[in-house]
Amino acid sequence: MRRTIGAAILSALLAVTTVSLINSVPISAQPKEAPKKVLRHVVLFKFKEGTTKEQVKAIEAGFAGLSSKIDTIRDFEWGTDVSPEGKSKGFTHCFFVTFADEKGRDVYLPHAAHQNFVKLVGPQVGDVCVVDYWTQK
Amino acid sequence: MRRTIGAAILSALLAVTTVSLINSVPISAQPKEAPKKVLRHVVLFKFKEGTTKEQVKAIEAGFAGLSSKIDTIRDFEWGTDVSPEGKSKGFTHCFFVTFADEKGRDVYLPHAAHQNFVKLVGPQVGDVCVVDYWTQK
Repeated sequence: MRRTIGAAILSALLAVTTVSLINSVPISAQPKEAPKKVLRHVVLFKFKEGTTKEQVKAIEAGFAGLSSKIDTIRDFEWGTDVSPEGKSKGFTHCFFVTFADEKGRDVYLPHAAHQNFVKLVGPQVGDVCVVDYWTQK
Repeated sequence: MRRTIGAAILSALLAVTTVSLINSVPISAQPKEAPKKVLRHVVLFKFKEGTTKEQVKAIEAGFAGLSSKIDTIRDFEWGTDVSPEGKSKGFTHCFFVTFADEKGRDVYLPHAAHQNFVKLVGPQVGDVCVVDYWTQK
C-alpha cells in the first residue's frame, strides 16, 4: 500500500515536471515567424493659410478615426513635423497607414469613410504627398 | 523514515508545482508596457535623370547599412513607391528610420557614417523631403 502511494506521488511528480517543462520554454526560444512584408501608405499634408487650429484638429481626428471604420487598416500612427533639417517642404503632418497588402489599400481608397474624409480635408489641404511602399530592411 | 521520504517527495512536488505555475502564466496575461512614443524620421528621395541602377542600389544599401554603424537607430525600413494615386511628387524612395528620442537623432545626423552617406548620395539626389514626428495613434 505504501509503495502504491509512493508510486502515485512519483507519477504525479513526473506529470507536473513534464507540464512545467512544456510551459517554461522561454519566449525567446519559441519559434518566430519570419517578418512579413507589409504595405505602408505615407501621407504628408500641408494646410492652407487661414486654416484654424480647430479645423486641423478635426482633420487629425478624422484621419485617426478611419482605423475604426475601415478594417483593412492594420496599423495607424501620425505626428507633426519636428525635423530640425528644414527639408519638410512645408509639410507639417505625416499620417502613416499600414495594410497587409494591395487588397487592403484597394478597399481603403474608395471606401465611403475615406472618401468622406477626403471631402472634409479638401478645402483646407494646401498640398499633399503620398508614397506607398512594401517594407524592406 | 518512510514519513520523512514521503514529506520530502511532497515538498519537491509542491516546489515543482510552484515553478510550473510561475512559468505557465500565458503571454497575454503578462503585464504590458504602455506603448512608448518613438521619433520617426521619414526621408523621401528622388534621383536625378541619368542616375544608374547601380548608383541607386549603392544608395539603398548605403542607407540600410547605417543601422549597423549608428547604434541609436532603433529600427529601419525602406521601400520604393508603388502608390497608384499619382501624388508622390516624383519621390521614388522612402527611408523610414526610428529613434527612441531626439538624442538618438542628434547622434545620427552629424555621425561620420551618416555624413559619408550624405556625400555619397549628394551628386545623385534630385530632391529630398524629410519629416520627423513623434508617434501618436
